[in-house]
Amino acid sequence: MAKPTPLSGYPELLPAQRFVETTVLDTLAEVFELHGFVNIETRAVEPLDQLLRKGDTSKEVYLLKRLQDEDAGKDAGVGLHFDLTVPFARYVLENAGKLEFPFRRYQIQKAWRGERPQEGRYREFTQADIDVVGVGELPVHHDVEVARVMLDALSRLTFLPGFRLQVNNRKLIQGFYAGLGVPDLDETMRLIDKLDKLPADVVRTQLVESGLSESQADRCLELATICTTDDSFVGKVRGLGVEHPLLDEGLDELAALVRGCAPLVTDRVRIEADLKIARGLDYYTGTVFETRLDGHESLGSICSGGRYDALASDGKNTYPGVGISLGVSRLLVPLLNSGALVADRSVPSVVLVALTDEESRPESDALAGRLRARGIPCEVAASPQKFGKQIRYAERRGIPYVLFSTEDGPQIKDIRSGDQVGIDPDTWAPPASDVRPTITTAITTQETNQ
Amino acid sequence: MAKPTPLSGYPELLPAQRFVETTVLDTLAEVFELHGFVNIETRAVEPLDQLLRKGDTSKEVYLLKRLQDEDAGKDAGVGLHFDLTVPFARYVLENAGKLEFPFRRYQIQKAWRGERPQEGRYREFTQADIDVVGVGELPVHHDVEVARVMLDALSRLTFLPGFRLQVNNRKLIQGFYAGLGVPDLDETMRLIDKLDKLPADVVRTQLVESGLSESQADRCLELATICTTDDSFVGKVRGLGVEHPLLDEGLDELAALVRGCAPLVTDRVRIEADLKIARGLDYYTGTVFETRLDGHESLGSICSGGRYDALASDGKNTYPGVGISLGVSRLLVPLLNSGALVADRSVPSVVLVALTDEESRPESDALAGRLRARGIPCEVAASPQKFGKQIRYAERRGIPYVLFSTEDGPQIKDIRSGDQVGIDPDTWAPPASDVRPTITTAITTQETNQ
Repeated sequence: MAKPTPLSGYPELLPAQRFVETTVLDTLAEVFELHGFVNIETRAVEPLDQLLRKGDTSKEVYLLKRLQDEDAGKDAGVGLHFDLTVPFARYVLENAGKLEFPFRRYQIQKAWRGERPQEGRYREFTQADIDVVGVGELPVHHDVEVARVMLDALSRLTFLPGFRLQVNNRKLIQGFYAGLGVPDLDETMRLIDKLDKLPADVVRTQLVESGLSESQADRCLELATICTTDDSFVGKVRGLGVEHPLLDEGLDELAALVRGCAPLVTDRVRIEADLKIARGLDYYTGTVFETRLDGHESLGSICSGGRYDALASDGKNTYPGVGISLGVSRLLVPLLNSGALVADRSVPSVVLVALTDEESRPESDALAGRLRARGIPCEVAASPQKFGKQIRYAERRGIPYVLFSTEDGPQIKDIRSGDQVGIDPDTWAPPASDVRPTITTAITTQETNQ
Repeated sequence: MAKPTPLSGYPELLPAQRFVETTVLDTLAEVFELHGFVNIETRAVEPLDQLLRKGDTSKEVYLLKRLQDEDAGKDAGVGLHFDLTVPFARYVLENAGKLEFPFRRYQIQKAWRGERPQEGRYREFTQADIDVVGVGELPVHHDVEVARVMLDALSRLTFLPGFRLQVNNRKLIQGFYAGLGVPDLDETMRLIDKLDKLPADVVRTQLVESGLSESQADRCLELATICTTDDSFVGKVRGLGVEHPLLDEGLDELAALVRGCAPLVTDRVRIEADLKIARGLDYYTGTVFETRLDGHESLGSICSGGRYDALASDGKNTYPGVGISLGVSRLLVPLLNSGALVADRSVPSVVLVALTDEESRPESDALAGRLRARGIPCEVAASPQKFGKQIRYAERRGIPYVLFSTEDGPQIKDIRSGDQVGIDPDTWAPPASDVRPTITTAITTQETNQ
């Protein structure tokens, strides 16, 4: 067959790139588990009625159809999930009697959307979601918790640019609009949500056209300009002179969130209360999250989520939830494809065990086994070439050490420095920094602190 | 909505069951990397012509179809992969210029087949594949290598029943048949392959009907009864008096395989040269592998593979490969569903940090953070209930320790023994055996050694 060509919208990685991705995924999993979140995996497919339940036609769903089905037009009644929230809500309902609530879970899986591929948006992509779900009620400190966990995780991905977690609260927005006497809260929120695409004066005109007075429109726009890295937004909102019980509730929740996250803020990973964030297309009922990657703002939000008062409901019980979803492919694939993020090895091996001749392969295998027994990844040379060729074999793969059998016993060569020393294969270990491939970054961020 | 019901053929796991699965997957990945195998991940879909390339109509393929496509009968021209070999072969061709050969890779992913669900056979299932692929040629020591790596991996899954890796070689079978003067080698192999389902006398009748003499049929059946745990099969085959150069080659390769694996054999994980194994439906050209799980032989082979002289070819180059694929779902889902394999915790947390009152949550969070900084998974109590209730909260999840703030400083209680002692949260660590949930097995194997 001829050389196959890539499928648009289905990114695949070369081994060294994939190493960067697995490092990110392993770090996320480790941090999520440190915070008591358990991993689950849901099937790739959901019944069509589940997939259409959210009623959002912008999610392009792929249906499955059996090739051997005699009725060519018939589908199998199931489609690939387009996010991890719909399957999680279904999983919670299906297994509610067997789960302990509050239920903290993380899920790292592929999802699929039939949309037009563009940078950061793919037809197949990996998401990493954390959610906490309760039965009946779920205190607001869990909103703080999921934000803290994600900040903790992002702060450990030190080879990535900085992150800016932007938080807001739907109760704050809706309470403010209600206190102002705005006629249609949802429509106003939808228009304000366009501020990242349209100039303020255009949005203002649309607000007035939608039925707001000029003064109401100005107040809504003023609210949307408030953005602080601490809880000083409370005073600024109060200064606008609007009163409503729902506004008070939203201000309290958002202030608790910003204060609760403060201990995790670093130069690289920051939080800000940005009162124009609304996530207008989703059904959040309180806290909302978005996240910008420093220097890559054009990717949009790479980590989003919020609070659902009814993530799921079975008629008897309601399950409120709060969660946040990191778009792993959206975050990494552009950085990997541009070469901004690279690993220095295309194999996990730290050591290449050289081979004198094919007859001595069992001895080289045994030597490799002694290193592996102590957790040192290694491989035995594929053929007994001249030692210079075996060293170049290691070099091409980024393997830092070659282990030789000599008359004086085993010797190890660091092929970067050329240093060669005798070692005991039952005690020698590489420096910790050599055990795993090193990830390096050629990223210039626009700014690393604000 | 009403409580959803499971989809037949799409197994999903509860958190404690999933923990068993991730432990298996993590162990496999760790061992594969220790042997220098690099992880890759391929997209879930392949173009239809790739999926049908093997020409095996028993693989029921799921096609994708966009829900919003205006032509309701039209599919997207791609389908879900039914194994990891077809996508790997395509990946090798697509990226050949960017890979280093011999290329060792492992791949742990879902695959899908639209077949009728039954125990151990699912519509969605997880496979763990290792393969070594060369360009032009690939020495037979890589056949030994992949078997050794899988034996090493299986031997570390100590909570599972024992495994019996059954190996054979197509050259041995075909050389023997050719030396005997059998008219149709493939048909004879296909009939012998039925020995695990049909009595020998029925297979004998079919062999004779297919054109073999009675003496040829007997000799083929005698070959198929040879089964040894060392290289003594060579003498037994020689004793049948058949001569052929391809037979010699097959005997040499298989003997090297059995001898090369001998250092990894344990009571639990064994190898045998079983000369009836042929994997007749696949296109192997040398070594073939199957694996039986002790006490669960009815599951069939849970780990299979072999050598392809042409895993892939682009007209210019041919890429021979040898690999082995562990059916993770086939292996684990029956054991998990029957309760034969369980984990003692439904959360990763080792410690529940108790909460005195909602106001002191920041202190409890900080205490938890000090444990997490040293890699100890923990969670803070969801609400400031009475301490007895907080202990029962931990008990229900299998969390072994509860950390209290007392007037005398932090104290930790092992809720299994009731022992409570004062600790320094910056130095205390649980015993290593408590860091991860414990997996226990209620399996009675038919036999653990042969």
